[in-house]
Amino acid sequence: MPLPTQIPALSPSTINRQVRLIARPEGIPQAHHFALAEAAIPEPAEGQFRVRNIYLSVDPAQRGWASAEANYSQPVPLGSPMRALAIGVVTASRVAGVREGEYLYGWFGWQDHAVADPSAIILRANHALPLAQFGGLVGINGLTAYLALTRIGRPEAGDTLVVSTAAGGVGSLAGQIGKLMGCRTIGLTGSDDKVALCRSDYGYDAAFNYRTTDLAAALAQAAPGGINIYYDNVGGPILDTCLRQMAVAGRVVQCGTASVASWTPPPTGPRNEREILTRRLMWGGFVLFDHAAGFDAAVAQLADWYAQGRIDLRLEVLDGIEHAAGSIADLYAGRNSGKRLIRVG
Amino acid sequence: MPLPTQIPALSPSTINRQVRLIARPEGIPQAHHFALAEAAIPEPAEGQFRVRNIYLSVDPAQRGWASAEANYSQPVPLGSPMRALAIGVVTASRVAGVREGEYLYGWFGWQDHAVADPSAIILRANHALPLAQFGGLVGINGLTAYLALTRIGRPEAGDTLVVSTAAGGVGSLAGQIGKLMGCRTIGLTGSDDKVALCRSDYGYDAAFNYRTTDLAAALAQAAPGGINIYYDNVGGPILDTCLRQMAVAGRVVQCGTASVASWTPPPTGPRNEREILTRRLMWGGFVLFDHAAGFDAAVAQLADWYAQGRIDLRLEVLDGIEHAAGSIADLYAGRNSGKRLIRVG
Repeated sequence: MPLPTQIPALSPSTINRQVRLIARPEGIPQAHHFALAEAAIPEPAEGQFRVRNIYLSVDPAQRGWASAEANYSQPVPLGSPMRALAIGVVTASRVAGVREGEYLYGWFGWQDHAVADPSAIILRANHALPLAQFGGLVGINGLTAYLALTRIGRPEAGDTLVVSTAAGGVGSLAGQIGKLMGCRTIGLTGSDDKVALCRSDYGYDAAFNYRTTDLAAALAQAAPGGINIYYDNVGGPILDTCLRQMAVAGRVVQCGTASVASWTPPPTGPRNEREILTRRLMWGGFVLFDHAAGFDAAVAQLADWYAQGRIDLRLEVLDGIEHAAGSIADLYAGRNSGKRLIRVG
Repeated sequence: MPLPTQIPALSPSTINRQVRLIARPEGIPQAHHFALAEAAIPEPAEGQFRVRNIYLSVDPAQRGWASAEANYSQPVPLGSPMRALAIGVVTASRVAGVREGEYLYGWFGWQDHAVADPSAIILRANHALPLAQFGGLVGINGLTAYLALTRIGRPEAGDTLVVSTAAGGVGSLAGQIGKLMGCRTIGLTGSDDKVALCRSDYGYDAAFNYRTTDLAAALAQAAPGGINIYYDNVGGPILDTCLRQMAVAGRVVQCGTASVASWTPPPTGPRNEREILTRRLMWGGFVLFDHAAGFDAAVAQLADWYAQGRIDLRLEVLDGIEHAAGSIADLYAGRNSGKRLIRVG
């Protein structure tokens, strides 16, 4: 459907509501680490533009952004709006190449209005996709699943692909994309409900609840020729088990380490160098923003599959900025029912 | 020099001396695991050829071939000539494409005469290199160093390359090749003599004795921007240290795990998945014979550098098949002074 019909009339509000980080979380950010505050609507300086946000994105990666621990991004300063992706419409522009009325997906934060320079733009919403899917199917989840799988996993028809957090925002797409590329797909997830979802909605050929299954035995049976690609979002013992069932020349995509609760003190595990050598594995780490040059082609492919009805990402849209603060904790507790967005516009 | 002048007159012997594996070693094969025996000179069947060996190769990988442990090759049967690479001249041929008088490097075993089919040929000695260097510079050491470094390490000018067993048969070549490709090279080795050799003969920009140096501190100082490529022949704690000093987008080449004495029971170490993810590493295992299609191009490049005097592999040639049996143990004890060959022809 055409984009403008999806957008409500501009709110007459003259204030900018912001969800600010007010305390440094140890572990998973909870609602009390944030406060709703009001500020004036900012004006763009030369070289900047302003967006009115329509959807705020809630992403597991925000845990890392809120943390003080050294990471691949700087910690969000206390007192600032929470770093977040959002989908907005440009309401003022003082920079060439960004025009009023344009819909953008980018680093606009948990707030109603943001002023930014063009480096904050991740995608321009100019494809035949519902606007909300710019925070979903072709947002960081979809871009991550597509680019990590194709660039590190390098699927070939007939490959056996195993995905951890197989029903999650990234995992469910990695499984679907692998299937579209001709892989046999095996999903690993943490509840029987999610196992059912993997089979019914995400097209996995097999799915296992790692909490209740002897994973080594299940994988040996489901992947008798070995695993060609392991798309890992969790690390830890599930990774250890999968590494030991890789086929020769297999690829391990390290996209997250969600199962490892703490890296201080450094946790130990079985040594993997002999597996890597004798199985001739290629084990690669993936961080999305290293691959920005590939975003447009990824969006084009994902949008094409979507238009054909061959891929989908379940969205859960909550209405109102007050839902933002507790939402990261909800994701980690499994209290979401799809990729969560907060509608604010 | 032209090849024929390097070759002695054909021995009039009518017997085939063989160094047979007579006991299954636990760990490193010693002289008493082998016995010198005599057999008739074999005749090639249709589809086969016969070589008279000139140089027998002694390689660390023979430890694995003699072992009963599951590996990427089948164990050498007890009572058979020890599996080995060798350089020989064709003395009879009943197969198209292999002609009498041709010099070959291949799987001809620790014996005077071998009958083989063409799949046993690794290289044809038709380049302007001393014949012995087909067991050295362009033998499995040189092919391994070149192909593992270029295909997994992917050196770019200005990269910092760290090599373990830096003065060894593979390591000394990996360091030299990296230097020729524009890397800053840092060698890790286990004695002060070898550190000196790394600096004087192999062109390393820096070299450290890992037994007497605080390796983490030394690397932090020698590679302040991080390690772009770690060419690892050892695994274990040296690998752990290097992984934690990799630059973003660094490559780890797993070419051996010589420092890990036993894999039963499975040894443990620090978990590495977070390093792989946050540093966006690519950690790949290398086994030479997966890359046979690249051998000719590798030989051409190595021979070209050799002709220009820009690369060398120190050879240690012992005269007489009686030196073979104890030679694997000599390598593991550091009692060799270069890539060891046994002259028998």
